[in-house]
Amino acid sequence: MNLQILSPVELRRAIRAGELKGNTSGLAQGFVQCNLAILPADWANDFLKFCQLNPKPCPLVGISAQPGDIAIAELGEDLDIRSDVPKYRIFKDGEFVEEVQDVTQHWRDDLVIFALGCSFSFEEALLADGLDVRNISEGVNVPMYRTNIECKPAGRFSGTNVVSMRPMKPADAIRAIQICSRFPSVHGAPIHFGDPAAIGIEDIHSPDFGDAVTINEGEVPVFWACGVTPQVVLEQAKPSFCITHSPGHMLISDLPNSRLAVL
Amino acid sequence: MNLQILSPVELRRAIRAGELKGNTSGLAQGFVQCNLAILPADWANDFLKFCQLNPKPCPLVGISAQPGDIAIAELGEDLDIRSDVPKYRIFKDGEFVEEVQDVTQHWRDDLVIFALGCSFSFEEALLADGLDVRNISEGVNVPMYRTNIECKPAGRFSGTNVVSMRPMKPADAIRAIQICSRFPSVHGAPIHFGDPAAIGIEDIHSPDFGDAVTINEGEVPVFWACGVTPQVVLEQAKPSFCITHSPGHMLISDLPNSRLAVL
Repeated sequence: MNLQILSPVELRRAIRAGELKGNTSGLAQGFVQCNLAILPADWANDFLKFCQLNPKPCPLVGISAQPGDIAIAELGEDLDIRSDVPKYRIFKDGEFVEEVQDVTQHWRDDLVIFALGCSFSFEEALLADGLDVRNISEGVNVPMYRTNIECKPAGRFSGTNVVSMRPMKPADAIRAIQICSRFPSVHGAPIHFGDPAAIGIEDIHSPDFGDAVTINEGEVPVFWACGVTPQVVLEQAKPSFCITHSPGHMLISDLPNSRLAVL
Repeated sequence: MNLQILSPVELRRAIRAGELKGNTSGLAQGFVQCNLAILPADWANDFLKFCQLNPKPCPLVGISAQPGDIAIAELGEDLDIRSDVPKYRIFKDGEFVEEVQDVTQHWRDDLVIFALGCSFSFEEALLADGLDVRNISEGVNVPMYRTNIECKPAGRFSGTNVVSMRPMKPADAIRAIQICSRFPSVHGAPIHFGDPAAIGIEDIHSPDFGDAVTINEGEVPVFWACGVTPQVVLEQAKPSFCITHSPGHMLISDLPNSRLAVL
Protein backbone atom coordinates (compact mmCIF):
# COMPACT_ATOMS: atom_id res chain seq x y z
CA MET A 1 0.00 0.00 0.00
CA ASN A 2 1.58 3.30 -1.09
CA LEU A 3 0.39 5.57 1.71
CA GLN A 4 1.68 8.71 0.01
CA ILE A 5 -0.98 8.62 -2.70
CA LEU A 6 -3.96 7.93 -0.45
CA SER A 7 -6.52 10.67 0.09
CA PRO A 8 -7.53 11.68 3.63
CA VAL A 9 -10.68 9.53 3.58
CA GLU A 10 -8.75 6.55 2.22
CA LEU A 11 -6.17 6.98 4.95
CA ARG A 12 -8.86 7.15 7.64
CA ARG A 13 -10.44 3.95 6.27
CA ALA A 14 -7.03 2.21 6.28
CA ILE A 15 -6.53 3.32 9.89
CA ARG A 16 -10.05 2.14 10.79
CA ALA A 17 -9.31 -1.27 9.21
CA GLY A 18 -6.14 -1.57 11.31
CA GLU A 19 -3.91 -1.46 8.20
CA LEU A 20 -2.13 1.70 9.31
CA LYS A 21 -0.99 1.90 12.91
CA GLY A 22 1.98 4.29 12.83
CA ASN A 23 2.24 8.04 13.20
CA THR A 24 0.72 10.24 10.54
CA SER A 25 3.67 12.58 9.93
CA GLY A 26 4.17 13.14 6.20
CA LEU A 27 0.84 11.57 5.21
CA ALA A 28 -1.99 13.40 3.40
CA GLN A 29 0.29 16.22 2.29
CA GLY A 30 -1.68 19.41 1.87
CA PHE A 31 -4.40 18.44 4.35
CA VAL A 32 -4.96 19.55 7.93
CA GLN A 33 -4.16 17.08 10.69
CA CYS A 34 -5.62 17.62 14.15
CA ASN A 35 -4.79 17.23 17.81
CA LEU A 36 -7.68 15.54 19.57
CA ALA A 37 -9.27 16.02 22.98
CA ILE A 38 -12.50 14.18 23.85
CA LEU A 39 -14.23 15.11 27.08
CA PRO A 40 -17.52 14.44 28.87
CA ALA A 41 -20.12 17.17 28.34
CA ASP A 42 -19.82 18.39 31.95
CA TRP A 43 -16.17 19.26 31.26
CA ALA A 44 -16.62 20.43 27.69
CA ASN A 45 -17.84 23.98 28.33
CA ASP A 46 -14.85 24.84 30.49
CA PHE A 47 -12.51 23.37 27.91
CA LEU A 48 -14.21 25.28 25.09
CA LYS A 49 -13.75 28.50 27.05
CA PHE A 50 -10.12 27.58 27.68
CA CYS A 51 -9.54 27.10 23.93
CA GLN A 52 -11.21 30.39 23.09
CA LEU A 53 -9.07 32.24 25.64
CA ASN A 54 -5.85 30.52 24.49
CA PRO A 55 -6.08 30.27 20.70
CA LYS A 56 -2.34 30.02 20.10
CA PRO A 57 -1.74 26.74 21.99
CA CYS A 58 -5.36 25.54 21.52
CA PRO A 59 -6.53 26.59 18.04
CA LEU A 60 -10.00 25.07 17.59
CA VAL A 61 -10.53 23.66 14.12
CA GLY A 62 -13.71 21.75 14.90
CA ILE A 63 -16.05 20.66 17.69
CA SER A 64 -18.77 18.01 17.58
CA ALA A 65 -22.29 19.40 17.24
CA GLN A 66 -23.88 17.29 20.00
CA PRO A 67 -22.55 15.19 22.89
CA GLY A 68 -22.17 11.60 21.71
CA ASP A 69 -21.60 12.54 18.05
CA ILE A 70 -18.83 10.41 16.53
CA ALA A 71 -18.07 12.84 13.70
CA ILE A 72 -17.45 16.49 12.95
CA ALA A 73 -19.12 17.02 9.60
CA GLU A 74 -16.87 19.84 8.39
CA LEU A 75 -13.69 17.87 9.08
CA GLY A 76 -14.28 14.87 6.87
CA GLU A 77 -16.52 12.54 4.91
CA ASP A 78 -17.34 9.14 6.49
CA LEU A 79 -15.51 10.07 9.70
CA ASP A 80 -15.77 7.84 12.78
CA ILE A 81 -13.73 9.48 15.51
CA ARG A 82 -13.75 6.20 17.51
CA SER A 83 -11.60 4.31 15.01
CA ASP A 84 -10.07 6.75 12.51
CA VAL A 85 -7.04 7.82 14.56
CA PRO A 86 -4.13 5.34 14.67
CA LYS A 87 -3.53 5.53 18.41
CA TYR A 88 -5.46 6.98 21.34
CA ARG A 89 -4.64 7.61 24.96
CA ILE A 90 -7.28 7.15 27.64
CA PHE A 91 -7.20 9.04 30.92
CA LYS A 92 -9.37 8.60 34.05
CA ASP A 93 -9.31 11.28 36.77
CA GLY A 94 -6.26 12.74 35.04
CA GLU A 95 -4.32 9.46 35.17
CA PHE A 96 -3.13 7.79 31.98
CA VAL A 97 -4.83 4.40 31.76
CA GLU A 98 -3.98 2.85 28.42
CA GLU A 99 -3.05 3.39 24.79
CA VAL A 100 -5.43 1.78 22.28
CA GLN A 101 -6.04 1.68 18.54
CA ASP A 102 -9.81 1.99 18.79
CA VAL A 103 -12.06 3.63 21.38
CA THR A 104 -15.39 2.19 20.22
CA GLN A 105 -15.63 0.10 23.39
CA HIS A 106 -14.96 3.18 25.50
CA TRP A 107 -17.42 5.48 23.76
CA ARG A 108 -20.11 7.25 25.78
CA ASP A 109 -23.06 9.30 24.69
CA ASP A 110 -21.89 12.33 26.69
CA LEU A 111 -18.53 12.74 24.94
CA VAL A 112 -17.64 15.96 23.08
CA ILE A 113 -14.90 16.00 20.43
CA PHE A 114 -12.41 18.88 20.16
CA ALA A 115 -10.13 18.97 17.10
CA LEU A 116 -7.22 21.41 17.39
CA GLY A 117 -4.81 22.56 14.70
CA CYS A 118 -1.35 21.01 14.54
CA SER A 119 2.09 22.20 13.49
CA PHE A 120 2.24 19.81 10.51
CA SER A 121 0.26 22.41 8.52
CA PHE A 122 2.62 25.33 9.12
CA GLU A 123 5.71 23.16 8.75
CA GLU A 124 4.46 22.29 5.26
CA ALA A 125 4.12 26.00 4.47
CA LEU A 126 7.64 26.70 5.79
CA LEU A 127 9.12 23.87 3.70
CA ALA A 128 7.23 25.04 0.62
CA ASP A 129 8.92 28.42 1.04
CA GLY A 130 12.35 26.79 1.09
CA LEU A 131 13.02 27.15 4.82
CA ASP A 132 14.82 24.43 6.76
CA VAL A 133 12.62 22.85 9.43
CA ARG A 134 15.30 21.28 11.60
CA ASN A 135 13.22 18.49 13.17
CA ILE A 136 12.22 17.39 9.67
CA SER A 137 15.69 17.67 8.10
CA GLU A 138 17.11 15.75 11.08
CA GLY A 139 14.25 13.22 11.03
CA VAL A 140 13.28 13.57 14.69
CA ASN A 141 10.33 14.77 16.74
CA VAL A 142 10.23 18.52 17.25
CA PRO A 143 11.73 19.57 20.62
CA MET A 144 9.10 20.85 23.06
CA TYR A 145 9.55 22.67 26.36
CA ARG A 146 7.46 23.65 29.35
CA THR A 147 7.56 27.45 29.86
CA ASN A 148 6.57 30.02 32.45
CA ILE A 149 4.05 31.62 30.07
CA GLU A 150 0.70 31.26 31.80
CA CYS A 151 -2.40 30.33 29.85
CA LYS A 152 -5.54 32.29 30.65
CA PRO A 153 -7.48 30.06 33.06
CA ALA A 154 -11.05 28.94 32.32
CA GLY A 155 -13.06 27.11 34.98
CA ARG A 156 -11.11 24.05 36.06
CA PHE A 157 -8.49 24.44 33.32
CA SER A 158 -5.24 26.35 33.83
CA GLY A 159 -1.51 25.89 33.33
CA THR A 160 1.49 27.14 31.42
CA ASN A 161 2.24 26.99 27.70
CA VAL A 162 4.28 24.25 26.14
CA VAL A 163 6.25 25.48 23.13
CA SER A 164 7.86 23.76 20.17
CA MET A 165 11.21 25.07 18.92
CA ARG A 166 12.76 25.35 15.47
CA PRO A 167 16.19 27.03 15.13
CA MET A 168 16.59 29.53 12.28
CA LYS A 169 18.77 32.38 11.12
CA PRO A 170 17.09 35.71 11.97
CA ALA A 171 16.17 36.50 8.33
CA ASP A 172 14.52 33.06 8.02
CA ALA A 173 12.76 33.55 11.35
CA ILE A 174 11.30 36.83 10.05
CA ARG A 175 10.02 34.99 6.96
CA ALA A 176 8.62 32.19 9.16
CA ILE A 177 6.76 34.77 11.25
CA GLN A 178 5.18 36.15 8.07
CA ILE A 179 4.21 32.70 6.79
CA CYS A 180 2.81 31.43 10.09
CA SER A 181 0.83 34.64 10.66
CA ARG A 182 -1.37 33.49 7.79
CA PHE A 183 -2.34 30.36 9.76
CA PRO A 184 -3.75 31.35 13.16
CA SER A 185 -5.65 28.05 13.46
CA VAL A 186 -2.43 26.03 13.43
CA HIS A 187 -0.73 27.98 16.25
CA GLY A 188 -0.04 31.10 14.16
CA ALA A 189 3.09 33.21 14.54
CA PRO A 190 5.82 32.24 17.01
CA ILE A 191 5.41 33.61 20.53
CA HIS A 192 9.12 34.04 21.36
CA PHE A 193 12.60 33.84 19.89
CA GLY A 194 16.10 34.02 21.33
CA ASP A 195 16.85 33.72 25.03
CA PRO A 196 15.23 30.48 26.34
CA ALA A 197 15.54 31.62 29.96
CA ALA A 198 13.23 34.57 29.25
CA ILE A 199 10.31 32.10 29.02
CA GLY A 200 11.53 29.78 31.76
CA ILE A 201 13.44 27.19 29.71
CA GLU A 202 16.56 26.14 31.60
CA ASP A 203 18.35 24.01 29.04
CA ILE A 204 17.55 24.32 25.34
CA HIS A 205 19.42 21.06 24.71
CA SER A 206 17.13 19.08 27.03
CA PRO A 207 13.56 19.36 25.76
CA ASP A 208 10.72 18.20 28.03
CA PHE A 209 9.07 16.38 25.11
CA GLY A 210 10.37 15.27 21.70
CA ASP A 211 14.02 15.31 20.68
CA ALA A 212 16.84 17.86 20.80
CA VAL A 213 17.89 19.33 17.43
CA THR A 214 21.10 21.01 16.29
CA ILE A 215 21.28 24.79 16.69
CA ASN A 216 23.95 26.12 14.32
CA GLU A 217 26.15 29.19 14.71
CA GLY A 218 24.16 32.30 13.82
CA GLU A 219 20.79 30.67 14.47
CA VAL A 220 18.33 31.58 17.19
CA PRO A 221 15.71 29.28 18.70
CA VAL A 222 12.20 30.26 17.55
CA PHE A 223 9.32 29.15 19.77
CA TRP A 224 5.73 28.37 18.76
CA ALA A 225 2.78 27.67 21.08
CA CYS A 226 2.36 23.91 21.00
CA GLY A 227 -0.55 21.47 20.86
CA VAL A 228 0.92 19.58 23.81
CA THR A 229 -0.25 22.49 26.00
CA PRO A 230 -3.87 21.25 26.21
CA GLN A 231 -2.67 17.74 27.08
CA VAL A 232 -0.60 19.10 29.98
CA VAL A 233 -3.52 21.27 31.08
CA LEU A 234 -5.87 18.26 30.90
CA GLU A 235 -3.52 16.21 33.04
CA GLN A 236 -3.56 18.95 35.67
CA ALA A 237 -7.34 19.50 35.57
CA LYS A 238 -7.94 15.77 36.01
CA PRO A 239 -11.30 15.43 34.26
CA SER A 240 -13.12 12.25 35.23
CA PHE A 241 -12.62 10.86 31.72
CA CYS A 242 -10.67 11.96 28.67
CA ILE A 243 -9.46 10.58 25.36
CA THR A 244 -6.64 12.18 23.35
CA HIS A 245 -4.70 11.12 20.29
CA SER A 246 -1.28 9.63 20.96
CA PRO A 247 1.49 12.18 20.08
CA GLY A 248 2.19 12.15 16.33
CA HIS A 249 -0.84 9.95 15.64
CA MET A 250 -3.22 12.63 14.46
CA LEU A 251 -6.73 12.88 13.04
CA ILE A 252 -6.33 13.36 9.28
CA SER A 253 -9.02 15.73 7.99
CA ASP A 254 -10.36 16.53 4.53
CA LEU A 255 -9.61 20.26 5.02
CA PRO A 256 -6.90 21.60 2.71
CA ASN A 257 -4.20 23.46 4.66
CA SER A 258 -4.78 26.46 2.42
CA ARG A 259 -8.35 26.65 3.71
CA LEU A 260 -6.94 27.67 7.09
CA ALA A 261 -5.05 30.65 5.66
CA VAL A 262 -6.65 33.92 6.73
CA LEU A 263 -4.94 35.84 3.94
CA MET B 1 0.04 78.36 13.56
CA ASN B 2 -0.99 75.00 15.01
CA LEU B 3 0.88 72.68 12.68
CA GLN B 4 -0.81 69.58 14.07
CA ILE B 5 -4.16 70.41 12.51
CA LEU B 6 -2.87 71.34 9.04
CA SER B 7 -3.62 69.01 6.13
CA PRO B 8 -0.78 67.79 3.88
CA VAL B 9 -1.50 70.42 1.22
CA GLU B 10 -1.69 73.18 3.85
CA LEU B 11 1.64 72.03 5.29
CA ARG B 12 3.26 72.02 1.84
CA ARG B 13 1.99 75.55 1.22
CA ALA B 14 3.34 76.70 4.59
CA ILE B 15 6.70 75.12 3.70
CA ARG B 16 6.62 76.77 0.26
CA ALA B 17 5.92 80.15 1.89
CA GLY B 18 8.94 79.69 4.19
CA GLU B 19 6.70 79.56 7.29
CA LEU B 20 7.82 76.05 8.21
CA LYS B 21 11.50 75.27 8.04
CA GLY B 22 12.00 72.46 10.56
CA ASN B 23 11.83 68.69 10.24
CA THR B 24 8.50 67.08 9.45
CA SER B 25 8.49 64.37 12.14
CA GLY B 26 5.07 64.17 13.78
CA LEU B 27 3.36 66.35 11.19
CA ALA B 28 0.50 65.22 8.92
CA GLN B 29 -0.29 62.23 11.11
CA GLY B 30 -1.81 59.45 9.01
CA PHE B 31 -0.19 60.57 5.76
CA VAL B 32 2.80 59.19 3.89
CA GLN B 33 6.04 61.17 4.03
CA CYS B 34 8.72 60.49 1.43
CA ASN B 35 12.47 60.36 1.03
CA LEU B 36 13.46 62.27 -2.07
CA ALA B 37 16.07 61.69 -4.76
CA ILE B 38 16.15 63.92 -7.83
CA LEU B 39 18.49 62.95 -10.67
CA PRO B 40 19.24 63.94 -14.27
CA ALA B 41 17.48 61.74 -16.84
CA ASP B 42 20.75 60.08 -17.91
CA TRP B 43 21.13 58.73 -14.35
CA ALA B 44 17.46 58.05 -13.73
CA ASN B 45 17.11 54.70 -15.51
CA ASP B 46 19.93 53.12 -13.53
CA PHE B 47 18.50 54.45 -10.30
CA LEU B 48 15.02 53.20 -11.17
CA LYS B 49 16.48 49.72 -11.77
CA PHE B 50 18.36 49.97 -8.47
CA CYS B 51 15.12 50.77 -6.63
CA GLN B 52 13.28 47.92 -8.31
CA LEU B 53 16.05 45.46 -7.36
CA ASN B 54 16.26 46.75 -3.78
CA PRO B 55 12.70 47.45 -2.71
CA LYS B 56 13.35 47.16 1.02
CA PRO B 57 15.83 50.05 1.33
CA CYS B 58 14.42 51.87 -1.75
CA PRO B 59 10.64 51.43 -1.79
CA LEU B 60 9.37 53.55 -4.68
CA VAL B 61 6.17 55.40 -3.85
CA GLY B 62 6.20 57.69 -6.87
CA ILE B 63 8.25 58.85 -9.84
CA SER B 64 7.70 61.89 -12.05
CA ALA B 65 6.05 61.14 -15.38
CA GLN B 66 8.47 63.15 -17.55
CA PRO B 67 11.92 64.69 -17.02
CA GLY B 68 11.51 68.26 -15.84
CA ASP B 69 8.13 67.66 -14.20
CA ILE B 70 7.92 69.47 -10.86
CA ALA B 71 5.11 67.28 -9.49
CA ILE B 72 4.04 63.67 -9.08
CA ALA B 73 0.28 63.82 -9.57
CA GLU B 74 -0.59 60.80 -7.41
CA LEU B 75 1.38 62.15 -4.43
CA GLY B 76 -0.39 65.41 -3.91
CA GLU B 77 -2.57 68.28 -5.03
CA ASP B 78 -0.82 71.55 -5.94
CA LEU B 79 2.63 70.00 -5.41
CA ASP B 80 5.78 71.88 -6.42
CA ILE B 81 8.72 69.66 -5.62
CA ARG B 82 11.11 72.63 -5.92
CA SER B 83 9.73 74.40 -2.86
CA ASP B 84 7.50 72.05 -0.88
CA VAL B 85 10.20 70.28 1.13
CA PRO B 86 11.62 72.22 4.10
CA LYS B 87 15.27 71.52 3.38
CA TYR B 88 17.17 70.09 0.42
CA ARG B 89 20.74 68.93 -0.08
CA ILE B 90 22.46 69.52 -3.40
CA PHE B 91 25.28 67.28 -4.67
CA LYS B 92 27.58 67.73 -7.68
CA ASP B 93 29.70 64.81 -8.84
CA GLY B 94 28.83 63.06 -5.59
CA GLU B 95 30.08 65.92 -3.43
CA PHE B 96 27.74 67.73 -1.07
CA VAL B 97 27.53 71.36 -2.17
CA GLU B 98 24.92 73.10 -0.06
CA GLU B 99 21.75 72.83 1.96
CA VAL B 100 18.90 75.08 0.76
CA GLN B 101 15.23 75.71 1.48
CA ASP B 102 14.20 75.98 -2.17
CA VAL B 103 15.66 74.48 -5.33
CA THR B 104 13.75 76.55 -7.89
CA GLN B 105 16.97 78.30 -8.92
CA HIS B 106 18.68 74.93 -9.39
CA TRP B 107 15.89 73.27 -11.38
CA ARG B 108 16.67 71.76 -14.79
CA ASP B 109 14.37 70.35 -17.42
CA ASP B 110 16.14 66.97 -17.35
CA LEU B 111 15.50 66.20 -13.66
CA VAL B 112 13.53 63.12 -12.60
CA ILE B 113 11.91 62.92 -9.14
CA PHE B 114 11.98 59.72 -7.09
CA ALA B 115 9.83 59.59 -3.94
CA LEU B 116 10.63 56.69 -1.60
CA GLY B 117 8.68 55.46 1.41
CA CYS B 118 9.88 56.44 4.88
CA SER B 119 9.80 54.84 8.31
CA PHE B 120 7.45 57.48 9.74
CA SER B 121 4.55 55.47 8.23
CA PHE B 122 5.38 52.16 9.89
CA GLU B 123 6.35 53.84 13.17
CA GLU B 124 2.86 55.29 13.26
CA ALA B 125 1.40 51.80 12.78
CA LEU B 126 3.64 50.40 15.55
CA LEU B 127 2.61 53.17 17.95
CA ALA B 128 -1.06 52.67 17.08
CA ASP B 129 -0.66 49.04 18.14
CA GLY B 130 0.72 50.09 21.51
CA LEU B 131 4.35 49.20 20.85
CA ASP B 132 7.17 51.36 22.20
CA VAL B 133 9.23 52.95 19.42
CA ARG B 134 12.35 53.83 21.39
CA ASN B 135 13.60 56.72 19.23
CA ILE B 136 10.18 58.36 19.61
CA SER B 137 9.78 57.69 23.35
CA GLU B 138 13.32 59.01 23.91
CA GLY B 139 12.76 61.95 21.54
CA VAL B 140 15.83 61.36 19.37
CA ASN B 141 16.62 60.43 15.77
CA VAL B 142 16.46 56.71 15.08
CA PRO B 143 19.93 55.07 15.23
CA MET B 144 21.17 53.96 11.81
CA TYR B 145 24.12 51.75 10.91
CA ARG B 146 26.10 50.78 7.84
CA THR B 147 26.00 46.99 7.33
CA ASN B 148 27.72 44.34 5.22
CA ILE B 149 24.42 43.44 3.48
CA GLU B 150 25.06 44.16 -0.19
CA CYS B 151 22.39 45.77 -2.33
CA LYS B 152 21.84 44.27 -5.76
CA PRO B 153 23.84 46.52 -8.13
CA ALA B 154 22.20 48.25 -11.10
CA GLY B 155 24.35 50.08 -13.62
CA ARG B 156 26.46 52.64 -11.80
CA PHE B 157 24.65 52.15 -8.49
CA SER B 158 25.85 49.70 -5.84
CA GLY B 159 26.62 49.59 -2.15
CA THR B 160 25.59 48.12 1.16
CA ASN B 161 22.38 48.54 3.11
CA VAL B 162 22.00 51.06 5.87
CA VAL B 163 19.61 49.88 8.58
CA SER B 164 17.62 51.62 11.27
CA MET B 165 17.29 49.95 14.67
CA ARG B 166 14.52 49.81 17.23
CA PRO B 167 15.01 47.63 20.36
CA MET B 168 12.08 45.45 21.40
CA LYS B 169 11.23 42.45 23.51
CA PRO B 170 10.95 39.36 21.26
CA ALA B 171 7.14 39.14 21.52
CA ASP B 172 6.87 42.82 20.49
CA ALA B 173 9.36 42.23 17.67
CA ILE B 174 7.14 39.41 16.36
CA ARG B 175 4.15 41.78 16.42
CA ALA B 176 6.22 44.49 14.70
CA ILE B 177 7.17 42.02 11.95
CA GLN B 178 3.47 41.29 11.38
CA ILE B 179 2.53 44.97 11.30
CA CYS B 180 5.38 46.06 9.03
CA SER B 181 4.78 43.17 6.62
CA ARG B 182 1.58 44.97 5.65
CA PHE B 183 3.62 47.97 4.47
CA PRO B 184 6.19 46.86 1.87
CA SER B 185 6.41 50.36 0.41
CA VAL B 186 7.70 51.83 3.65
CA HIS B 187 10.56 49.34 4.07
CA GLY B 188 8.34 46.39 5.04
CA ALA B 189 9.35 43.76 7.60
CA PRO B 190 12.67 44.00 9.43
CA ILE B 191 15.62 42.33 7.72
CA HIS B 192 17.49 41.22 10.85
CA PHE B 193 17.25 41.01 14.62
CA GLY B 194 19.64 40.09 17.38
CA ASP B 195 23.41 39.87 16.89
CA PRO B 196 24.63 43.16 15.32
CA ALA B 197 27.95 41.57 14.25
CA ALA B 198 26.07 39.14 11.98
CA ILE B 199 25.35 42.05 9.64
CA GLY B 200 28.66 43.84 10.13
CA ILE B 201 27.75 46.28 12.90
CA GLU B 202 30.67 46.61 15.31
CA ASP B 203 29.18 48.69 18.09
CA ILE B 204 25.42 48.93 18.53
CA HIS B 205 25.94 51.90 20.88
CA SER B 206 27.70 53.95 18.18
CA PRO B 207 25.34 54.41 15.25
CA ASP B 208 26.75 55.73 11.98
CA PHE B 209 23.80 58.12 11.61
CA GLY B 210 21.19 59.37 14.08
CA ASP B 211 21.37 58.87 17.84
CA ALA B 212 21.98 55.91 20.14
CA VAL B 213 18.93 54.67 22.08
CA THR B 214 18.60 52.63 25.27
CA ILE B 215 18.43 48.84 24.87
CA ASN B 216 16.85 47.38 27.99
CA GLU B 217 17.42 43.97 29.58
CA GLY B 218 15.46 41.34 27.64
CA GLU B 219 15.26 43.41 24.46
CA VAL B 220 16.89 42.61 21.14
CA PRO B 221 17.84 45.11 18.45
CA VAL B 222 15.51 44.85 15.46
CA PHE B 223 16.83 46.15 12.15
CA TRP B 224 14.90 47.61 9.21
CA ALA B 225 16.24 48.51 5.78
CA CYS B 226 16.64 52.28 5.84
CA GLY B 227 15.97 55.15 3.45
CA VAL B 228 19.49 56.45 4.06
CA THR B 229 20.71 53.55 1.89
CA PRO B 230 19.96 55.33 -1.41
CA GLN B 231 21.73 58.49 -0.18
CA VAL B 232 24.87 56.49 0.61
CA VAL B 233 24.63 54.72 -2.74
CA LEU B 234 24.20 58.05 -4.51
CA GLU B 235 27.29 59.43 -2.78
CA GLN B 236 29.29 56.46 -4.03
CA ALA B 237 27.92 56.55 -7.60
CA LYS B 238 28.74 60.26 -7.87
CA PRO B 239 26.08 61.35 -10.38
CA SER B 240 26.91 64.66 -12.01
CA PHE B 241 24.00 66.33 -10.20
CA CYS B 242 21.59 65.27 -7.50
CA ILE B 243 19.10 66.78 -5.09
CA THR B 244 17.86 64.98 -1.97
CA HIS B 245 15.78 66.04 0.99
CA SER B 246 17.71 66.85 4.15
CA PRO B 247 17.36 64.00 6.71
CA GLY B 248 14.10 64.32 8.63
CA HIS B 249 12.84 67.06 6.31
CA MET B 250 10.56 64.95 4.16
CA LEU B 251 8.09 65.44 1.34
CA ILE B 252 4.62 65.32 2.91
CA SER B 253 2.18 63.59 0.55
CA ASP B 254 -1.61 63.41 0.36
CA LEU B 255 -1.50 59.57 0.45
CA PRO B 256 -3.03 58.07 3.59
CA ASN B 257 -0.63 55.60 5.25
CA SER B 258 -3.39 53.00 5.12
CA ARG B 259 -3.35 53.24 1.30
CA LEU B 260 0.11 51.63 1.38
CA ALA B 261 -1.12 48.57 3.28
CA VAL B 262 -1.14 45.50 1.05
CA LEU B 263 -3.51 43.64 3.36
